[in-house]
Formats: sequence, C-alpha cells, structure tokens
Amino acid sequence: MKYIDLLGYFAGILVVISLLPQVIKSWKTKLTRDISLMRYIVYAVGLVLWIVYALVVKNGPVAVMNSIGLIFALIILFLKLKYK
Amino acid sequence: MKYIDLLGYFAGILVVISLLPQVIKSWKTKLTRDISLMRYIVYAVGLVLWIVYALVVKNGPVAVMNSIGLIFALIILFLKLKYK
Repeated sequence: MKYIDLLGYFAGILVVISLLPQVIKSWKTKLTRDISLMRYIVYAVGLVLWIVYALVVKNGPVAVMNSIGLIFALIILFLKLKYK
Repeated sequence: MKYIDLLGYFAGILVVISLLPQVIKSWKTKLTRDISLMRYIVYAVGLVLWIVYALVVKNGPVAVMNSIGLIFALIILFLKLKYK
C-alpha cells in the first residue's frame, strides 16, 4: 500500500466518523427539529447503492466504511422520525 | 465505462446531493440548533483530504464530486456558526 492510499483511507474514515457526533447529539438531546429528513433519506439510499457497487467491484474497505456510515445514517434517520 | 461504474457515480452523486436539502432547510429556517457542529467540522476536514487524495491519484470525478460536497458542507458549517 502506498502512502497516498493511507491518505485516502484516512479521509474516508473521517467522513464516516463525522456522523458519530450527530448520532450522539441527537441521541442525548432527543431533538432533531433542524435536521433535514430528506437529507438522510437520500444519503442512506446513496450509501446502499455505494455498498452494492463496492461489493460488485470487490472493494472491501469501501464496502465496510460505507456500511458503518449507513448504520450511523439509519440511526440519525430513526431519531429524526422518532423525535420530529 | 462499465454499467457498474455508472452505479458508483450515481451513488456518489446521491451522497453529495443529499446535503442540499439540509442547506436549503437551514438557510430558510435560520435554525441549526440540533445540528452537530463537530459533525460538519470533521466532515469538511475529511472532504479536503479526500480531494487532495483524488487530485494526487488524478481521479477527476471524485475530486469534482467531493469539491461540490465540500461547498455544501461549508455552507452548512457557516449557517451553524451564524445561527447557533
């Protein structure tokens, strides 16, 4: 693996991990008024398609990272629907 | 280009476009209370690194898509800081 690939993975991990503060905030405050429902619906659909793509082209890291991102996105979507 | 690549691009476009409803909602309502500041700071840093990665490996579509995503993310970050 080249150094530049490490940068790519690190960037991908940051993008996925960035969802966690939103999960924690929404979970703790039970407030999701200002969060766009449509944002997380379209996002979740996009991630599902991206996971399908990664599985077809056999890109394990991308499939795993997007799966973790999908879990976070679905939690936020659930909290949005619960506390809307 | 193979059909599966089209799926990859479509997924990427959905993920980026999904930020737009949040931009519009935050812009219109001027309310960003329930949005995590840390989420968009980490997200923006991740996207910047991803753009650097894409430029180094000369992946134009990924660089363009993440640049558009970064613009949306920075707008949301700006609105979060303005209306917090």
